[in-house]
Amino acid sequence: MSSTKDIDDLIELMAKLPGLGPRSARRAVLHLIRKRALLLTPLADCLQIVAETARECLNCGNVGTTDICDICTAEKRATGELCVVEDVADLWAMERSGVFKGRYHVLGGTLSALDAIGPEQLRIPRLIDRVASEGITEVILALNATIDGQTTAHYIADELDGQVRLTSLAQGVPIGGELDYLDDGTIMAAMTARKDL
Amino acid sequence: MSSTKDIDDLIELMAKLPGLGPRSARRAVLHLIRKRALLLTPLADCLQIVAETARECLNCGNVGTTDICDICTAEKRATGELCVVEDVADLWAMERSGVFKGRYHVLGGTLSALDAIGPEQLRIPRLIDRVASEGITEVILALNATIDGQTTAHYIADELDGQVRLTSLAQGVPIGGELDYLDDGTIMAAMTARKDL
Ligand SMILES: [Zn+2]
Ligand SMILES: [Zn+2]
Repeated sequence: MSSTKDIDDLIELMAKLPGLGPRSARRAVLHLIRKRALLLTPLADCLQIVAETARECLNCGNVGTTDICDICTAEKRATGELCVVEDVADLWAMERSGVFKGRYHVLGGTLSALDAIGPEQLRIPRLIDRVASEGITEVILALNATIDGQTTAHYIADELDGQVRLTSLAQGVPIGGELDYLDDGTIMAAMTARKDL
Repeated sequence: MSSTKDIDDLIELMAKLPGLGPRSARRAVLHLIRKRALLLTPLADCLQIVAETARECLNCGNVGTTDICDICTAEKRATGELCVVEDVADLWAMERSGVFKGRYHVLGGTLSALDAIGPEQLRIPRLIDRVASEGITEVILALNATIDGQTTAHYIADELDGQVRLTSLAQGVPIGGELDYLDDGTIMAAMTARKDL
């Protein structure tokens, strides 16, 4: 590809990243080599640190560099509210919005009969433990609005029924969303949950 | 973004790569952390090697891990043919095609009055030296079919006029190309250079 094995190896590894194909991996590698001091060396160093330290939080499943993540150890986040998400990417999205001040529980996926993923394959037993032991007053089920996501939410709601307040994110028209581009289910949900002005 | 500084730093650096924005950088970093042994550690190690060793060939401008690149040192590539390209990415594209067995000269851009890029800012003086000293019999001007690329090709052709055979890549319809999708210039070039069957 190039004329040098190390550079070819780098292109091949970069091409395995989601969102990069062989062509964009080649462009990225040339860009890195041209910006050695500004980008290549810092990226190499940072990757080395993350490769050595990144791990899943033993409590919530968030990704961090300590056994128990920063959110689980922050005292001020012990609000009694626990937000259940499918994936670390969802946790990051919630954190970017800045709207939630409590703690998280990352399931690591959804129940799926097809893929033989039951409660034991997710962090559902651990969730039930946490609700009992961490003084949780409200569990917010922030799962995706997919069939598997909603099946999982219903399963968890059944398991925790009567022990804690259970809520889920409101469904409706996204901010800036045009009705013409929304699917029927979203429009139906928004209509059903309509509010007085 | 995430809840950990090292991971945030990594996302920020990844987002600076061409073709990756913040969202795909986050996805890439989560993917890397999940595939630590298979992808994250090998990529970190490989980047470290390339950061320490990558350099431009002092002879041709190709990118490699030695002062003089593998193509310039390979005896069997001393065919007397020298292929002039704008960019290392173009050299890699030629190498992938496998069609060319000689050596390269990477200009590092094109002449541009607008950006104040003259022959001295490119590797043009070095090209003229090489033609005189390396027993070059043919210079193939494989520059892009853009205005700046063609201006640069004409300039080099004038400089080397009478010293060496000068050729350029054939222009025409790309293999699999549909006329309906080609610009007028390409169709004109293909028509002008039409061949008897
Ligand atoms: Zn945690
Ligand atoms: Zn070289």
